[in-house]
Formats: sequence, structure tokens, C-alpha cells
Amino acid sequence: MSCVLTDFRPIAARHSIAQRDFRENLTAAIRGEAGLDDEALAALVEKYTVSPDCIERRFIEVPSVYTRPGEADCDVSEAMMDARMRIYDEAACDVLRRAFRPDEPPPDDLIHVTCSGYNSPSPAQRLVSEYGWPSIVTHSYHMGCAGAFPAVRMASGFLAAGALYGRKSRVDLLHTELLSVHATSARQRLDPEGLILRSLFGDGLIRYSAIDERSLPARRSGLRVLSLKEHIFRETLDDMTWRLFPEKFKMTLSNRVPFVIAGNIEQFAQEIFAQVGLEFDAHRADMVFAIHPGGPKIVDLVQRFLRLEDWQVRHSREVLRDCGNMSSATVPHIWERILADRSIAEGTRVLGVGFGPGLAAHGMLGEKV
Amino acid sequence: MSCVLTDFRPIAARHSIAQRDFRENLTAAIRGEAGLDDEALAALVEKYTVSPDCIERRFIEVPSVYTRPGEADCDVSEAMMDARMRIYDEAACDVLRRAFRPDEPPPDDLIHVTCSGYNSPSPAQRLVSEYGWPSIVTHSYHMGCAGAFPAVRMASGFLAAGALYGRKSRVDLLHTELLSVHATSARQRLDPEGLILRSLFGDGLIRYSAIDERSLPARRSGLRVLSLKEHIFRETLDDMTWRLFPEKFKMTLSNRVPFVIAGNIEQFAQEIFAQVGLEFDAHRADMVFAIHPGGPKIVDLVQRFLRLEDWQVRHSREVLRDCGNMSSATVPHIWERILADRSIAEGTRVLGVGFGPGLAAHGMLGEKV
Repeated sequence: MSCVLTDFRPIAARHSIAQRDFRENLTAAIRGEAGLDDEALAALVEKYTVSPDCIERRFIEVPSVYTRPGEADCDVSEAMMDARMRIYDEAACDVLRRAFRPDEPPPDDLIHVTCSGYNSPSPAQRLVSEYGWPSIVTHSYHMGCAGAFPAVRMASGFLAAGALYGRKSRVDLLHTELLSVHATSARQRLDPEGLILRSLFGDGLIRYSAIDERSLPARRSGLRVLSLKEHIFRETLDDMTWRLFPEKFKMTLSNRVPFVIAGNIEQFAQEIFAQVGLEFDAHRADMVFAIHPGGPKIVDLVQRFLRLEDWQVRHSREVLRDCGNMSSATVPHIWERILADRSIAEGTRVLGVGFGPGLAAHGMLGEKV
Repeated sequence: MSCVLTDFRPIAARHSIAQRDFRENLTAAIRGEAGLDDEALAALVEKYTVSPDCIERRFIEVPSVYTRPGEADCDVSEAMMDARMRIYDEAACDVLRRAFRPDEPPPDDLIHVTCSGYNSPSPAQRLVSEYGWPSIVTHSYHMGCAGAFPAVRMASGFLAAGALYGRKSRVDLLHTELLSVHATSARQRLDPEGLILRSLFGDGLIRYSAIDERSLPARRSGLRVLSLKEHIFRETLDDMTWRLFPEKFKMTLSNRVPFVIAGNIEQFAQEIFAQVGLEFDAHRADMVFAIHPGGPKIVDLVQRFLRLEDWQVRHSREVLRDCGNMSSATVPHIWERILADRSIAEGTRVLGVGFGPGLAAHGMLGEKV
């Protein structure tokens, strides 16, 4: 049994917002609250929001005053937790119905990945019930931006242990990261960190399948899973947090995060290769990377500390530019582009890396097939 | 590779409350709110809370006016979500430190199971970071009372797919169900359902290990995992819900639940046997059951509809009596007692069954070894 990830399908979001328009809408929304004159306010927004050079556009399912100011009646940014979770539930159920047709062959398993909304029954359980599918639902929740890695770990395990539950031929993974549900009120978090976070995240919706490589159709590309590794660093527990508040989920992010990543990334890469008897240095120059672009600096830092060329990290940078940080859905979008890119040959090694609360580094070494 | 669950260790909670004392405390707490004279109030509490004949005692980590009225300064029942999640985090971290010693051999994996508190980093990630362990943390969250089953599915998969991550020898599972964090305010939910829910749930804390059967020490008993099955019924989506509100997580439970369970349990049992080429009817009379005692009626119903003797469901009933409904931690407590019970011979088949939102039936067919 060799586990292959394949058939990556991003799901189109309902709306999008250009970063330039976002900056204007944000400025208008917080004008009355910031206590600054227009010039100072514009300078603040320009300084502390991610530049359109890094993020051109983001996608959104749920409107707020920052993203769809004309639809103020739907504005979620002043809502409380129960209303937001209801909105999440409706939007995510709708995403699932767009992602899966009732007449397609159901997967044996459906792993639902998110850190942005928790309801029981979950949108994945609702889909399976509504479609009358026999698919088994698993939740891979609350793992932040690194959520794809535990989910792939589960999927490869479900395929490998098939004898326990009857043979499995297809495990589907579906990410519904609806960060737009957690839009911050204009009255709150006008500090630099609050402004950065508002400008960084976009909704990320994608499905893909884990199958045994022997079932991979001849002309379809895939990513063979070679090695998975996760590591929690010491004394960095509070550098990234994601917690539940009465109105919404809230993130904090310390400015130490990029340094921890920079200081540990090379050893982490070496270890994930060594785990399956390979040497990172032997592959460093001719492989590609799917680096979770947590912020504009992360890809630059990883590139510098691993001594990589631009082409090796191109898709990481381009996904950030085209979609923003989509939390756990980001790395799968990068994998999708790597598989679609005909300039990346079969046999190329692909190292996926994400960072989540802990701080934890999560990695998957794959091979394009 | 044959996956065995073993070394079940319940973790002692800080406090406990006898159901008789709970009824008194509850009556005192809601007296001013219920708008009833004392006699009517006593009759209401007696009618709509679970009788001490079914639940004698429950365990609690976090005090409320119902469980530790003398410690009103620590009362959680009026707190909002952020305060409750902080309390959850501290209490669960403390449980983990009581459950694992820093000098014991770390597990390869630690699966953290809960539906009662979500923080990032999670208590499991904090433990691994503080102890400097290489253990990989996985969250199995928001699966309600059936949470043990997806977690065992993950654990068996991690053992089976060991080649992907380096060989695994031990996957630990830890349940921290701190339902006491979600104590309902005396001002709210004085309806029958609210009273029932207050009187049913206790905190459940337990760790156990999934290992390859070849590593099972000679004199230690275990539960060999033979078959796992989950099924979501149609048109029962809103019969059990568990959702996030500004102050806390809240449950709803319709009175159709026992009937759905009764109407489907026999077919479900037959299917989980058939999945591995066995016949339920051939084992029905000489096997034992770990039935999640969601409420006082569930064990009675399953017993009746599967035509079982008292001894076959004894541990399910006794765990409910001794600890209440501990959500996902309940079935592991029943497994623990079945393994410790010398009157249950090696080779006995054990069917574990739980019911969660969906409605979903979750089952594990095991064999005592």
C-alpha cells in the first residue's frame, strides 16, 4: 500500500476582495473608532496591513464591513458566537454541497478539516446524512494553519488499516476554512497585530483524495506520501494561540514566530528525510516546496535558511498572492498547483511544511507521481 | 499487525458529588428563579433529574453552585466562554500532568479526545512541549459521546501505517471530558431538558494505549480491535446537537433518540460482525457489551432489543451508576472494567457501541486477550 494524494479541487468561494479595496473599506470602517485624522489613519493602515504586492486578492463566503460594505445587513463582524456558528454552519453546508454531487461515488471516508467552526452535527455529517452515503466522517479540528498534516496522517492510516473496517479505496479530505466568519468588529483590535490579522486571512475551500497508488488513473498526477513528521518546540507555547471568546475565535501571534521557524527549519527538513533513509542535501537543489505562507515573511525566511531558488518556492508565494493565508487549506492549494505545473517533472520531491500553535512544525515529504 | 487497546487508567478527579446532594444543591440554587413553592420545586427536581438509583455519584474538576456550593467564589456557571476555556485549559493541563509522569517512556503518538474544550495550543501540546517529548499530538474533537471510536480508528491507522513516519510502538489516547466547565447558570434552562442534562453528565478522565498485539506483556489483558463501524442515520440530524454559544457549549437532545437507537441497534450489531465475516447471532449469548449509557433508558433499551442478560450489560450500567455520563470517556471506562473483570474470560467478544450527533452509531467489535 502506497498512499497518494490526488484530485485536488479548490471550491470557488462566493465573493472575493482585492487587497486595495479591502484597505479602503477597512479605513472607512474604523475611521470613527481609531481617533486619528485621515492622513494618520491611512498611514496606519498602509503600515500595518499586508501590502497588495504580497496579497492581491482574498476569497470570502461571509460578508463583513471590510469585504462587502454594501451588504451591511449581512455584516458578521458585530455578531456573537452562536450567530457566527450558525452562519458558519450554513455556509459550510453550502460549500459541501458545491464540493460533492449527490450522484458521484461516495468516498469510504470523509475527513473534515477546519479550525474555524465547530457544530454537531458537523457540515460533513449533514452531507453524508442528506446524501444517504455510507461514508465515515472524521473531524480533524483545531490544528490551525497546519491542519492538513494531521489529516493526511489520518487518511494514510485509514487506508493502511483497511482490514479493520472493510477495505477502503478512497478517503476524501475537505477543508472548510471560513475565516470570514471571524471578522473582527471595527471597535476592537485597532492595534498593529489586529490590523495585520484582518488583512492576512482569506477563506480556503478545497477537497482532495487519498488513495492507494495502484488505483491512480494512468494520466492523473498525484503526490506519493513518503514521510510525515511533526515536532513541538520548547518554550514557544504562547507565541501563537487560537482561542474561543464570547463573540468569536481569536488569534494571537508573537513576532518571535519567524525567528523560531528560521532557526529550526533546516534541521526539521533533514530529519523528515532521514526518517525514511534519505538525505535532504542530496535533493535540496532539485526539489520543490509547499511552505505554508503564514505571513509575507515566512516564505522569504524559509527560502533563505534552506538556500533555495525562487522557482522552488514559487507556488507558495503565488498562493499567498492569489488567496491570502487560508489557514489549513493553504498547503493543499500549493500541492494542487505543484501537481498541475507541467514544468515540475514526475519524480520530483515535494516538501510540505506548516507551522501551528505549540509552536509545532508539521511536514510531509512527498514525490510527484 | 493486530491493534490491541490496553493499560486503561482512569484518572482520579478532584471532587465528587453524590446525586442526592446534587439534587439538594440544585434545588437551593434555582429556588429564586423557578417561581415555584418549595414543594412544587422539589417535585420538579425529583421528576426531571436522574434518580440516585441510576446515578449514585459523579466526578467533577471544576466547581459550580450545584456541585460545590461552599466554593461559590470558584463558581463557573455564570462565566462566559473565554473564562470557561481558560478554566478548562488549566484544569485539563493539570489532568494531563496527573496522567503522565515526565520520566515515563513517552508514547509515539498522543491522541487527545474531548468535546468540552478547545484551546490552541491544546493541553496535549502543552504537555509534550513541557516534557520535551517527541510524541506527535492529534486532536479528536467535537464527536460528542461517541468520541472514543474515531480516536481508536485513528490509533489503529497510525500503528498500521507506521512505515510512513518511522515505526510506532505505542499510541496513547487521553480523554479529558470536563463537562463541569459547562455548568448551566441557575437563571437558565429550568425546562425539563435543562434539568435532565444538569443531572446526567460527570467529568471523565482516562488514558489507555493502542499497541501491536505482539508487544502486549504476557500477564496484561487487552482488547483486540476486530472491526470498527460508523453509520449516520437519515432524518435524525437535529435530534442531538452540541453547539457553541457566547457563554458555553450547549446540548439539545430530542426524545426520539432512544427510539432511533432501539430501532437500529440489532442491524448495526449484525453489520459490524458481518464486516469481518462473523455472525452476531452466533456470539449474541456469550459475549459482553460496552454500551454508552447516554441516559438511564439507553442500556435498558439496547438490552431489550438485542435480547441480552443483565450480566452482559452489567459494566455499562455500573459505570453510569458510579460516574454518570462522561461523554466520550464513558465507553473506555466500561472497557477498563471488562478487562479487569476476571469472570469475563479471554476470547470473549466485546461489542462497544456509542451514539453521537447525526444521529450516528459508532461501534467497535473487540476480543478480550
